[in-house]
Amino acid sequence: MTDPTRPFPKDLIDLDDFTPEQLTHILDTAESFKEVSEREIKKVPTLRGKLVVIFFHENSTRTRLSFEVAAKRLSADTVALSASGSSLAKGESLLDTAKNIEAMNPDALVIRHGASGVPSFLGKRLSFPVLNAGDGAHAHPTQALLDMLTLREHKGRLDGLRVAIIGDIAHSRVARSNMVGLTRMGAQVAVAGPPSMLAAELAETYGVEVYTRPEPAIEGADGVMMLRIQLERQAGALFPGAREYARVYGLTPERMRLAKSDAVILHPGPVNQGVEMPPEIYSDPRSVILPQVTNGVAVRMALLHLLIDNPEKHQVQ
Amino acid sequence: MTDPTRPFPKDLIDLDDFTPEQLTHILDTAESFKEVSEREIKKVPTLRGKLVVIFFHENSTRTRLSFEVAAKRLSADTVALSASGSSLAKGESLLDTAKNIEAMNPDALVIRHGASGVPSFLGKRLSFPVLNAGDGAHAHPTQALLDMLTLREHKGRLDGLRVAIIGDIAHSRVARSNMVGLTRMGAQVAVAGPPSMLAAELAETYGVEVYTRPEPAIEGADGVMMLRIQLERQAGALFPGAREYARVYGLTPERMRLAKSDAVILHPGPVNQGVEMPPEIYSDPRSVILPQVTNGVAVRMALLHLLIDNPEKHQVQ
Amino acid sequence: MTDPTRPFPKDLIDLDDFTPEQLTHILDTAESFKEVSEREIKKVPTLRGKLVVIFFHENSTRTRLSFEVAAKRLSADTVALSASGSSLAKGESLLDTAKNIEAMNPDALVIRHGASGVPSFLGKRLSFPVLNAGDGAHAHPTQALLDMLTLREHKGRLDGLRVAIIGDIAHSRVARSNMVGLTRMGAQVAVAGPPSMLAAELAETYGVEVYTRPEPAIEGADGVMMLRIQLERQAGALFPGAREYARVYGLTPERMRLAKSDAVILHPGPVNQGVEMPPEIYSDPRSVILPQVTNGVAVRMALLHLLIDNPEKHQVQ
Repeated sequence: MTDPTRPFPKDLIDLDDFTPEQLTHILDTAESFKEVSEREIKKVPTLRGKLVVIFFHENSTRTRLSFEVAAKRLSADTVALSASGSSLAKGESLLDTAKNIEAMNPDALVIRHGASGVPSFLGKRLSFPVLNAGDGAHAHPTQALLDMLTLREHKGRLDGLRVAIIGDIAHSRVARSNMVGLTRMGAQVAVAGPPSMLAAELAETYGVEVYTRPEPAIEGADGVMMLRIQLERQAGALFPGAREYARVYGLTPERMRLAKSDAVILHPGPVNQGVEMPPEIYSDPRSVILPQVTNGVAVRMALLHLLIDNPEKHQVQ
Repeated sequence: MTDPTRPFPKDLIDLDDFTPEQLTHILDTAESFKEVSEREIKKVPTLRGKLVVIFFHENSTRTRLSFEVAAKRLSADTVALSASGSSLAKGESLLDTAKNIEAMNPDALVIRHGASGVPSFLGKRLSFPVLNAGDGAHAHPTQALLDMLTLREHKGRLDGLRVAIIGDIAHSRVARSNMVGLTRMGAQVAVAGPPSMLAAELAETYGVEVYTRPEPAIEGADGVMMLRIQLERQAGALFPGAREYARVYGLTPERMRLAKSDAVILHPGPVNQGVEMPPEIYSDPRSVILPQVTNGVAVRMALLHLLIDNPEKHQVQ
Repeated sequence: MTDPTRPFPKDLIDLDDFTPEQLTHILDTAESFKEVSEREIKKVPTLRGKLVVIFFHENSTRTRLSFEVAAKRLSADTVALSASGSSLAKGESLLDTAKNIEAMNPDALVIRHGASGVPSFLGKRLSFPVLNAGDGAHAHPTQALLDMLTLREHKGRLDGLRVAIIGDIAHSRVARSNMVGLTRMGAQVAVAGPPSMLAAELAETYGVEVYTRPEPAIEGADGVMMLRIQLERQAGALFPGAREYARVYGLTPERMRLAKSDAVILHPGPVNQGVEMPPEIYSDPRSVILPQVTNGVAVRMALLHLLIDNPEKHQVQ
């Protein structure tokens, strides 16, 4: 289905650009980098003298910080720019800004943007790697990779796992990248959410099971991923309210009993405690929400390294 | 009174957690680091590969910059986050944010927060050192330590010195940390301010002299510390107005004559010139306001080093 | 006319402080630094252990980023502060802020400010080099130097070149620094703009030709520099509107035919495409707008190096 000799992509836009072998290579590389963050001296010279530009158009703590920490642990230099402090405030187009950055000879651009397609648009027009740190409702590939690394760590494999994803499936870039990545690695994905948060074509497009109730999705799952409900964005029409959502879709201990006994609980964070899950599930021993954050640094180190450092060598044989 | 074998604290919350021996050790270490900032190459490899997270919820030039410079002079990496650009804007709790930071394996968190108690709350829940860069009206321990270093440098000792602190004693974290630290080191502290800026229990709690007029506090002082009046925060009720304050509490040359002839003038900055002191006192040869800033970098280098680098070795024997 | 033994200035305020020999030395140094940005490891240890403070009071992508990248490629540490996050919000004067920065032993201050004269004012009062990154309508010397480097690269010399500058000459710091620098290097400068954007004394003050139509300025030019029109700042009274400006002053292909056949097209960016020039001129092979950005990093590396590193040695013999 995928071509095993396909060269490693120039950019990280979404996971459908990568073969299963390439995804495995990223996860293996990330695993080997985890140890760097536990050393006394948390730094390797891999990307010394390289410049990573971090360009965030949307608020973020964890993703921006995670990329910055990843770059620094590889000894890269980082410069950050945000939409407000940039020439975009002078009416410059995003491509112009990017072309100007390119003229300064950077080695990678990490970009988060509210509009789907921006990283892909830029990646096609820039000579250096572009890493998508989240674009609109389209994709959040580093999040999916850290989810996959966390699942693989706890389950020993991805192939054949059953993973439930609960929440606003239709509008979540986290859900989308995970559906793409997990199914590509041979996992079975079951999604569930209110009808207003699903879309008719999900089953066909992604090869996932689709439910309007969480129970059948969670049944027999090896991992249950609760998506963040954007309380601040929800209009009354689509959304029944936080309390009603928690009652019908929240990951209660009862619902969690439907999953395999050794299933893990994931969430991209920040968690709305009492909405997506009650506090006792957040702090349940099966919750791997903080290990996900740790893996995020490792995944981003792997991607910065693989994309910046001699990309032509990373062709999977 | 204090236990000389008490281990060096994990966090820097306020100076009452430290024995006089430990405070002396911090000041000695700071003194030895001052020389680094005067070198041709202002950098030592002490904290290479360590990550310092700098998290400021309140505006600051000097304290934030001072910590950043201190970290870089020790070769640590720094990442900064502010409340507005962080997940706190998404409604995440501060503890969740901190736990997420913890999952990225940092080596220290420097935090400034408008609410008293936040650094202590986080320090108890995080596995790595938390350094209080100012919390509400509670404490500002690095400011007090740099004040103490400056006094010790100019006077040769702290024990037996008389130090006047003039201003809004009741609401000043600078005053509070200095009262704790200076008295612990054997100095005699005399505070003065308008009645609305004092509190009944100051004398008993901190063992300081309390006056409603500056003159008796300044009389015979080795150091006079003028606190910053928060002109922008003062409501008319408590505060007689800047001109009236300057007249009654300002450090005029006449009042300064009450101090010892070799007394030094301190201020945490930024100075409201013409309010806390007239320009001629600001630029008086006895003013050590800029040397305080220089010492701030040294004190923060010492604390980052002592707290991050093998804290278990710093137990005072 | 200029004294060839004049010592290399402490600060970079504007180009009239530099002799032609010193300007040539800066451009030569920049040229030699260009190669660093093309290396596999884009970093030299020139400024290791030096601290560059970057203080921007106005929005900027390219200039701020360019200085930051330049500093990092020389292995300097950088700390940034902006007006909003600084003590200026507490009412501290700019000089106080700068004196506080000085007390932290930095090696250079890069400052952009909306008020003309601020960098000069600070430079005279601070012991370390101040680099003007743009002050009001006064000067933008690093921009002029990168323009000059770009012209010299493409033309082999500056002496005897004819350079047209088109736009709001009277209010442009870019125009002003270029008029000073280019004429000092022996180039002939012809400026053109609407009468409201010219000033009577330009010809006499700078020794340039002044026109109210672009054609005679462009005639026979080796380089045509289009200034950015501040669409967001223009009041209807002075400014005929973007469409009218484009018609009369825009660099159309027809107008470009008046220049020498190998003339280059410059613009400080960001370009208002369709106003200062149509898209086909922006992407014309003679356009060196992106090479200007590349040269900006090299020029700033040169200046940071020359001003920080043993300035007393840079006296031109």
